[in-house]
Amino acid sequence: MKIVLIGSGNVATHLGKAFQDCGHEILQVYSRLGTNAKALATILKCDATYEIKDINTKADVYFIALKDDAIETFVKKINFSGKVIIHTSASLPMDILKASSKDFGVFYPLQSFTKNRKINLKDVPVFIEANNSKSKKVLLELAKCISDKVSEITFDQRLTLHVAAVFANNFTNHLYKIAGDILKTSGLSFDVLKPLIKETADRVMTTDPSKVQTGPAQRKDHKTIKKHLELLKNFHAYNNIYSIFSQSIERQSK
Amino acid sequence: MKIVLIGSGNVATHLGKAFQDCGHEILQVYSRLGTNAKALATILKCDATYEIKDINTKADVYFIALKDDAIETFVKKINFSGKVIIHTSASLPMDILKASSKDFGVFYPLQSFTKNRKINLKDVPVFIEANNSKSKKVLLELAKCISDKVSEITFDQRLTLHVAAVFANNFTNHLYKIAGDILKTSGLSFDVLKPLIKETADRVMTTDPSKVQTGPAQRKDHKTIKKHLELLKNFHAYNNIYSIFSQSIERQSK
Repeated sequence: MKIVLIGSGNVATHLGKAFQDCGHEILQVYSRLGTNAKALATILKCDATYEIKDINTKADVYFIALKDDAIETFVKKINFSGKVIIHTSASLPMDILKASSKDFGVFYPLQSFTKNRKINLKDVPVFIEANNSKSKKVLLELAKCISDKVSEITFDQRLTLHVAAVFANNFTNHLYKIAGDILKTSGLSFDVLKPLIKETADRVMTTDPSKVQTGPAQRKDHKTIKKHLELLKNFHAYNNIYSIFSQSIERQSK
Repeated sequence: MKIVLIGSGNVATHLGKAFQDCGHEILQVYSRLGTNAKALATILKCDATYEIKDINTKADVYFIALKDDAIETFVKKINFSGKVIIHTSASLPMDILKASSKDFGVFYPLQSFTKNRKINLKDVPVFIEANNSKSKKVLLELAKCISDKVSEITFDQRLTLHVAAVFANNFTNHLYKIAGDILKTSGLSFDVLKPLIKETADRVMTTDPSKVQTGPAQRKDHKTIKKHLELLKNFHAYNNIYSIFSQSIERQSK
């Protein structure tokens, strides 16, 4: 299929390459910032534009990987009847695309894409939502060419997936950051935590996390919890997070 | 060296095997519960006892891997002058061992040990604290035989390490649990999060977590945060955790 990529961020970059690798043709990259459009177009060896009026009209698919607010603004400015319009947002309903075409849908890969990190997309679950059979066929073709784990979901399920991902990815990463900040106060390096972080993640690949919960709160060890809160007394926000987690874990422990 | 293991839990099991693998001799396992002592002694092919008076007095090292409260009770009941007494507690000072010998110290491996999970101990940082040069020599010999990452630390540093580990391991595991609970409400499986969990952990092996923070709070996307809090309205504790994390992340975002 012939694809125009709308956006030039991490999602557009990772998916654009993947679509190309499985034989689709990227005609053009659009980005409001010409330099960004060109940078990705250079990687993908295709055209670039920063003008909506110059967007190539020959594609089968217009694949929008912009920030939520930008998507809403963008779709009001285009009309591609006969083409399939897709967005990748976790939080926006599919119908937002109605203005730009009668065939549309959502392509939601459950992964965190970061610059310069190669991701094995075959393992990444891709969730799709389509407004009709034509859009669904296109979405399935795109999704199945890059991933072995493709499912159809509803908008409500997509929102739920996003909330769960915020806990498992964004908040987990923040915990790593906090742990590093705490170590710094004693002149210790974040590196010492790496085997523990790896083991914590590896363990839940095969075991339900509720079955491997450990630590002071799990064993209701209030003496240690008290020592830890005392040690965190100068970190007001972290002290608060420590308390709330300890309460939540203890409530669920047997 | 000849070692008596005091305790038969996960730490005693993992370390007992590792000491044996690098040539030390486990003479005996002591546990208050005879069946537990025997179970580990069977694995290590050594003696077992549940009576303090029957603890073998021929060892060089008495290696105490009990719960904190049990350590305090245990050391008051023994006297092994001339022997090196070691505990593995994150939170107890070294001096608690003073009652049982004049040579003592702490052996603190920064890892979460779970039953039936093999851990590559060579990568696990081991932190030691010794009260004199005799104890230090013994601790270094034990630590260096199982790990390539041995350091001396103070009691305050050990407490700090433990707090950081609680964030990086215990709280992270609780986030995985929460994410799974949230998915269940939409009939989705925890499995879909595994590639994301893996990537989140892998990423910080080479990148500072503060440089890869993503998500609604990081980009100050209050619309999405509001939707998520609404979706969590029936999960009071999780809604609270979501708010506090979002505030903490946003405060640190640029």
